[in-house]
Amino acid sequence: MEDIRIIELKESILADNDADADKLRSELDAKGIIYVNVMSSPGSGKTSTLLRLIEELSCRYGVGVLEADIDGDVDTRTMLDAGVPAVQLHTGGMCHLDADMSRQGLRELESQAKEQGASLDLVFLENVGNLVCPAEFDTGAHINLVILSVPEGDDKPLKYPLMFEKADVIVVNKIDAMEAFDFIPDRFKANVAKCSEDTPVFMVSAATKEGMHALAEWISDRVREKRD
Amino acid sequence: MEDIRIIELKESILADNDADADKLRSELDAKGIIYVNVMSSPGSGKTSTLLRLIEELSCRYGVGVLEADIDGDVDTRTMLDAGVPAVQLHTGGMCHLDADMSRQGLRELESQAKEQGASLDLVFLENVGNLVCPAEFDTGAHINLVILSVPEGDDKPLKYPLMFEKADVIVVNKIDAMEAFDFIPDRFKANVAKCSEDTPVFMVSAATKEGMHALAEWISDRVREKRD
Repeated sequence: MEDIRIIELKESILADNDADADKLRSELDAKGIIYVNVMSSPGSGKTSTLLRLIEELSCRYGVGVLEADIDGDVDTRTMLDAGVPAVQLHTGGMCHLDADMSRQGLRELESQAKEQGASLDLVFLENVGNLVCPAEFDTGAHINLVILSVPEGDDKPLKYPLMFEKADVIVVNKIDAMEAFDFIPDRFKANVAKCSEDTPVFMVSAATKEGMHALAEWISDRVREKRD
Repeated sequence: MEDIRIIELKESILADNDADADKLRSELDAKGIIYVNVMSSPGSGKTSTLLRLIEELSCRYGVGVLEADIDGDVDTRTMLDAGVPAVQLHTGGMCHLDADMSRQGLRELESQAKEQGASLDLVFLENVGNLVCPAEFDTGAHINLVILSVPEGDDKPLKYPLMFEKADVIVVNKIDAMEAFDFIPDRFKANVAKCSEDTPVFMVSAATKEGMHALAEWISDRVREKRD
């Protein structure tokens, strides 16, 4: 297995993260890269959902992943084992990523892709598992994708409203476990509608692949829109 | 149903939270109150675990609950419906609680108990659902109780080491769902041992009540130790 590249992120010194995030989006637009910020609680299934999505998308696009964690490299190993270009970002205890930290990771991922003669069209950031802090920082992503898993409960938009407000797309994972938990999809959607009315919600299972194709198509449509 | 008391927390102005936390512990000791800080990801089952524990403990002790959330009052309603004295704390977007914020909540809970002629021996704080930030702030609690649920995965101590280091007791919830998920208790315990060797781990299900009695006895022993 190839060596894992671990970037120890430096805290940003820029005062205006929002302006820097806009700048990063322009830089990525110029390179034709779509950047997707994936946020959820710990253990909602970010990594397994991404693996399924990449299975669907990698025939069409060059896909890479930034794995942000306080510590460890479990998810980066999983990605590399699956043949997906991936870089591990260590936040040094910080609970979120911002635009400049994204830039530090993207630079390394682009250099890795270049060495392998691969192109990057679509980059997923697996943000720190946390429904609070990551919502407050624009990472420079084009799409904020929020995952909630069935065992967490359908009331989470009421408790973490900012996260659901910031979402461009919401994914409910582990729907294969629906029977074991008191999760009512209509109640969840009504709770989401209180934060953001028109955000699409996809019901999926990374374990059975149910619903994954529709979500992959939605992402693919966004990539195409961006390129046209 | 009685009116819900909601405290909009003020950000602490104290520079030294650690010193203030020690001060709060002494204040609570003088009143004979044991304060337990319950931390977990969103949706790990803090509220339902607490309800089960309180069923076991409320015949022996006067129990109250502080419910901390970014927004909403779902859990406080659940507690009050179950006849448990509870106060809702709103963090105004903050991702954690510190000692002074605990004090603001405890003051209200004590005044509520006094009005009802009830005594308080044991107070649970249901911290903001987050495995990162709450670990960094001493709330003044005597016991840090960390809950992880089976669907989140047995690798979480590797990704959120500080939280598991700070735990005085670790509770694995939703063990009734073990078969549906790839969670291996021995692997989890080995991961925990990397952060903190002697922390007791209780395997429970708030849904079936399995394991709850042993956990309640452990807490009860701590209360007795403190009083002797």
